[in-house]
Amino acid sequence: MEGVDHLAHERNKAGFDVEHMKIVWAGSRHAFDLSDRISRLVASDPVFRKDDRTMLGRKELFKNTLRKAAHAWKRINDLRLTEEEGYKLRFFVDQPAFTDLHWGMFVPAIKGSGTDEQQQKWLPLAYKMQIIGCYAQTELGHGSNVQGLETTATFDPATNEFVIHSPTLTSSKWWPGGLGKISTHAVVYARLITNGQEHGVHGFIVQLRSLDDHSPLPGVTVGDIGMKFGSGAYNSMDNGVLRFDNVRIPRNQMLMRFSQVTREGKFVHSSVPRQLVYGTMVYVRKTIVSDASTALSRAVCIATRYSAVRRQFGSQNGGIETQVIDYKTQQARLFPLLASAYAFRFVGEWLNWLYTDVTQRLQANDYSTLAEAHACTAGLKSLTTSVTADGIEECRKLCGGHGYLNSSGLPELFAVYVPACTYEGDNYVLLLQVARHLMKTVSQLGSGNKPSGTTAYLGQVKQLLQYRSDVQKAEDWLEPNAVLKAFEARAAWLSVACAENLSKFTNPEEGFQALSADLAEVAVAHCQLIVVSKFLEKLQQDIPGKGVKQQLQVLCGVYALFLLHKHLGDFLSAGCITPKQGSLANEQLRSLYSQVRPNAIALVDAFNYTDHYLGSVLGRYDGNVYPKLYEEAWKDPLNESIVPDGFHEYVQPILKQQLRNARL
Amino acid sequence: MEGVDHLAHERNKAGFDVEHMKIVWAGSRHAFDLSDRISRLVASDPVFRKDDRTMLGRKELFKNTLRKAAHAWKRINDLRLTEEEGYKLRFFVDQPAFTDLHWGMFVPAIKGSGTDEQQQKWLPLAYKMQIIGCYAQTELGHGSNVQGLETTATFDPATNEFVIHSPTLTSSKWWPGGLGKISTHAVVYARLITNGQEHGVHGFIVQLRSLDDHSPLPGVTVGDIGMKFGSGAYNSMDNGVLRFDNVRIPRNQMLMRFSQVTREGKFVHSSVPRQLVYGTMVYVRKTIVSDASTALSRAVCIATRYSAVRRQFGSQNGGIETQVIDYKTQQARLFPLLASAYAFRFVGEWLNWLYTDVTQRLQANDYSTLAEAHACTAGLKSLTTSVTADGIEECRKLCGGHGYLNSSGLPELFAVYVPACTYEGDNYVLLLQVARHLMKTVSQLGSGNKPSGTTAYLGQVKQLLQYRSDVQKAEDWLEPNAVLKAFEARAAWLSVACAENLSKFTNPEEGFQALSADLAEVAVAHCQLIVVSKFLEKLQQDIPGKGVKQQLQVLCGVYALFLLHKHLGDFLSAGCITPKQGSLANEQLRSLYSQVRPNAIALVDAFNYTDHYLGSVLGRYDGNVYPKLYEEAWKDPLNESIVPDGFHEYVQPILKQQLRNARL
Ligand SMILES: Cc1cc2nc3c(=O)[nH]c(=O)nc-3n(C[C@H](O)[C@H](O)[C@H](O)COP(=O)(O)OP(=O)(O)OC[C@H]3O[C@@H](n4cnc5c(N)ncnc54)[C@H](O)[C@@H]3O)c2cc1C
Ligand SMILES: Cc1cc2nc3c(=O)[nH]c(=O)nc-3n(C[C@H](O)[C@H](O)[C@H](O)COP(=O)(O)OP(=O)(O)OC[C@H]3O[C@@H](n4cnc5c(N)ncnc54)[C@H](O)[C@@H]3O)c2cc1C
Repeated sequence: MEGVDHLAHERNKAGFDVEHMKIVWAGSRHAFDLSDRISRLVASDPVFRKDDRTMLGRKELFKNTLRKAAHAWKRINDLRLTEEEGYKLRFFVDQPAFTDLHWGMFVPAIKGSGTDEQQQKWLPLAYKMQIIGCYAQTELGHGSNVQGLETTATFDPATNEFVIHSPTLTSSKWWPGGLGKISTHAVVYARLITNGQEHGVHGFIVQLRSLDDHSPLPGVTVGDIGMKFGSGAYNSMDNGVLRFDNVRIPRNQMLMRFSQVTREGKFVHSSVPRQLVYGTMVYVRKTIVSDASTALSRAVCIATRYSAVRRQFGSQNGGIETQVIDYKTQQARLFPLLASAYAFRFVGEWLNWLYTDVTQRLQANDYSTLAEAHACTAGLKSLTTSVTADGIEECRKLCGGHGYLNSSGLPELFAVYVPACTYEGDNYVLLLQVARHLMKTVSQLGSGNKPSGTTAYLGQVKQLLQYRSDVQKAEDWLEPNAVLKAFEARAAWLSVACAENLSKFTNPEEGFQALSADLAEVAVAHCQLIVVSKFLEKLQQDIPGKGVKQQLQVLCGVYALFLLHKHLGDFLSAGCITPKQGSLANEQLRSLYSQVRPNAIALVDAFNYTDHYLGSVLGRYDGNVYPKLYEEAWKDPLNESIVPDGFHEYVQPILKQQLRNARL
Repeated sequence: MEGVDHLAHERNKAGFDVEHMKIVWAGSRHAFDLSDRISRLVASDPVFRKDDRTMLGRKELFKNTLRKAAHAWKRINDLRLTEEEGYKLRFFVDQPAFTDLHWGMFVPAIKGSGTDEQQQKWLPLAYKMQIIGCYAQTELGHGSNVQGLETTATFDPATNEFVIHSPTLTSSKWWPGGLGKISTHAVVYARLITNGQEHGVHGFIVQLRSLDDHSPLPGVTVGDIGMKFGSGAYNSMDNGVLRFDNVRIPRNQMLMRFSQVTREGKFVHSSVPRQLVYGTMVYVRKTIVSDASTALSRAVCIATRYSAVRRQFGSQNGGIETQVIDYKTQQARLFPLLASAYAFRFVGEWLNWLYTDVTQRLQANDYSTLAEAHACTAGLKSLTTSVTADGIEECRKLCGGHGYLNSSGLPELFAVYVPACTYEGDNYVLLLQVARHLMKTVSQLGSGNKPSGTTAYLGQVKQLLQYRSDVQKAEDWLEPNAVLKAFEARAAWLSVACAENLSKFTNPEEGFQALSADLAEVAVAHCQLIVVSKFLEKLQQDIPGKGVKQQLQVLCGVYALFLLHKHLGDFLSAGCITPKQGSLANEQLRSLYSQVRPNAIALVDAFNYTDHYLGSVLGRYDGNVYPKLYEEAWKDPLNESIVPDGFHEYVQPILKQQLRNARL
């Protein structure tokens, strides 16, 4: 059966041009070609195999990661890959490694916060990997609250050095990836003290290990913080612990782009506007949003293909059984996630634009859009990572028992993904930031401050509070404006209702604390509106390819109406729709599911994932699931011997015993 | 600091008598004493330590499991424990093992479906563990659809034997726990064929391995199906694959309580009513419901204690920071789960009563309540396991970054728990069974068939559709009847609305398929109503202990109003409450959270879990989290050497290289 495409009949059903959809998904012809080429390169290289990954013990797994990282570096150099290609290659290797932090956090931190001089000194070393660095911010006692970090950097004018010190147990650096066993250097965040005065938290380049024999430098205690969620998953990463016992570094290793300590120990701000750091935050978070769409689409691809292969019940007279993808409950769980993957893709694309826009404005000293851009990326990071984490687990459940096997790929995908809800800003802490921005925007409405960007709709708050949907039959919900206005009206109503409740408190901060659970919901509603509106905007564009745009319209409808159904209480409370209109939306949703059904396989084929990248027997392109599941099973170490280790010692004596005392 | 109780100030705040609450949680003084005694016994035994579990490779972990199982058996015999005590001991060992299936499925299957003669022959062997058995139903191709199993058992009158055979790859048995490496016997479910005729699926006792050398018998292929979700977790279990090549067993090894094959090969039904099998299903599912409350309470206990230890933000002038448990978002995520744990406990208690009731009725040949009891246990299994699985992960997220460490205990708890959503009936398949029962009940309302048990409220459907809540201020929602009626009205309305939509289809089965996503929601609403109503009934009882009942009233309110807020759209669509009343419910919910807050630690102390059973550094009773986290980290195998394996081979060459070709 090798070589047979068991899903060919599904692929033939598709009513749109998959090749065009691949380009839409990738974002451009160039992006498609790049991903396609590099993912095949990785897939065909035996060093990058990963099917055995979850069976490796921690040390073997870590060694395997070092091997892959070295090989990736070699390939990048041998093939003279560009920076973009190199990034893609590491991405498709798909195994968290110290290099992620070196390239993704250490280098950008120096670029973002180092002076020109510092960049000239350190970046070439980092680019050539003559030093390897990590990003050491979080401590045992403080993550979300960066201002609470306890590590100190005290300037000693006598020697022109900073003394880096961990004064308490809770000040131990804790979590930085790449720190535990590999990094030679770190950007360490510490409380700056000069002349007995504190000046807040700043970054310092600190060497941790000898470049000769890799042993920790005097005063440095460093190690790995232990196993994390899952087998495989993030255990390939050496998240680390780090303590300093009065470690001295030269003054010029404080990252001094925004503020400096002079030779005399004077703390001064530079002329570079601090707001520039927001640019980096927008950058990092836009990456997280597009990674969310990638992770979610991967899980959806596996669950969709397997749902078309899996048959259960419904055979009449010994005939063939129903594909589980034909069950409406299966569709109602799966298709909204498929739609979300596409929705997140497009909002990620829009964030690329936003990033460019913000950067250009920053260069022109225009900070007017910054607060809104910052809030909106924070919110989208929170929304998309939460939905993706839950969505991966739902996809696993959609695969029934077999989804629980590591060979399904889903357990590891979940385990490796979930920390995205926590790092780069805990999702609830971020939602509250968004809510703060919204409340501020609402409170300033009277003062003539016109809200802009993603909060522009709040400018029409009066009309929105009056808005009554005119939907009369199910298909009316296909009208983009019907959807958009309802989402705007809901978000506006929630904001205003919360603002009113807030105004009852004499102490606004107390009010904010008391109502924060509601405020988080307001923020979610606002972010969902952003995603819906960016999807609708995408559909305004010219999208070539037979049936491609129509499919995206269907998915957009699924995304929006699924949310409307899920949060119906908001919409009804806002008064913008009636219960009858709510049930029409649900009716329309059912009909959209039927339209997705014949296109489902092609819609996940459009992600263009190799079987290597998917890493799932259930999600194989050819649908040849059962023989391969069977094959995989026998590779487990337990199957190396017929009689397992421990049997003779522990089980045989029981089987052979003559029980005297048992009461059972 | 060893020996200091860092949570003492929290314990002092409690406004109720924890010792009494412990009895309420356990169900009785006897149950409390039993759990308390056995859990301490296990905790103090070094063989049962489990803190190193996630660091073991598959083979080591499996061997460790065999060791624990043997030791547990020895302790049970040495201490002459009763069956109940023995069960508890295995429970607190807290590591899935072949013995779970032996005692939990193999023995009950023989008891339930074997004739008296068969029980006399096999049970003594099983009780003494002279044979070890498992339950082999699921196949590679069929799980939910048991009638679709492909394994055959063909009667051969010439030899008076059944020939057990796996005709296809997909007929391979797949998943049975204990099968892969340990079981000597299995109850195998297969399609019975006599005289060329099929007679559906039946159970057969089949010996798989030699009792001499444990090698598989001729014609038997058996092995482990490979690694599953997580490190540790279910990987201690040898879920197995099994194929038969025309394996012969004596005729008397078919389980013949309900139907028989005669010496001549005639298939006959016995006089024992088939309905008796439902008793077993109710039994198994009631256990799953109480296990759900256990798993959820464990996660909640960890997250609650850690939330009281963890401080982040909010320090004024260098003062102490806010405990994260004081943030309202944290409370709004955590306290409903705390309330759910209690709610599930009480519904589990009620299921004990239901089981006794059903059993007594069965003995009296009264099958009238069976369908309802069956539907309700199916639904409660689905509801409680789904909420628990999601709840554990939410608790993990509530612990921020540190929840991602295995030493938090939460990753493993999640990984070991989630299959409960799939085994013993996939949760969606079960919901649809409930929905079928509800639709049948509604359709028979006209015919004078009075609905009973948990569907009794549907007898008042007319009044419920007219019901309008009279809540006028937030506290009115504390009235048990206000809550109960709203939940009844919502469930009734959803049922009726679905029934009306169904009636539009000429083919009812087609209608059921088309509307199944809505039907699943109806089933959920019905099950939530059951949980709410059983909680309220519990509060009707006399509950001794200072403040105990009051606390439970608060938790019941949290449970109900949280659900009302979450599913507000249903309630508003039903018209039983107004948007204003919905927002009053939310206001009351906020105030209930504040009432839970000072009691939170005591409420989780009432679970009476040992630190051993919790298995979490974050959930330690004494709250001494940070030093212990730090200690645990150093135990990781990666920390055995300063320079990790693979460094010299793979990383050092990079650090030392002279790059020639890099374009970067
Ligand atoms: C896999 C992984 C990799 C990481 N890599 C790095 C790295 O390379 N470098 C690095 O420096 N760090 C790293 N981190 C650390 C990460 O940045 C922190 O874990 C993250 O910032 C969350 O902080 P925390 O753990 O302190 O959570 P906490 O803030 O302790 O959160 C605990 C709970 O409190 C709640 N909470 C906290 N504050 C508030 C508030 N004000 N209002 C309401 N609720 C609140 C949260 O919502 C959460 O539920 C990593 C973490 C992980 C898991
Ligand atoms: C850890 C673990 C231990 C187990 N132990 C045992 C054991 O000891 N012995 C044993 O015999 N088995 C065991 N099993 C197997 C288990 O009983 C099955 O996995 C379970 O019955 C689910 O069946 P499935 O895997 O075929 O799921 P499927 O039925 O294939 O489910 C796949 C998807 O299809 C959907 N679906 C299926 N049918 C319908 C329908 N009619 N309508 C709507 N949707 C539908 C489901 O909701 C799900 O989303 C175990 C499984 C696990 C994970």
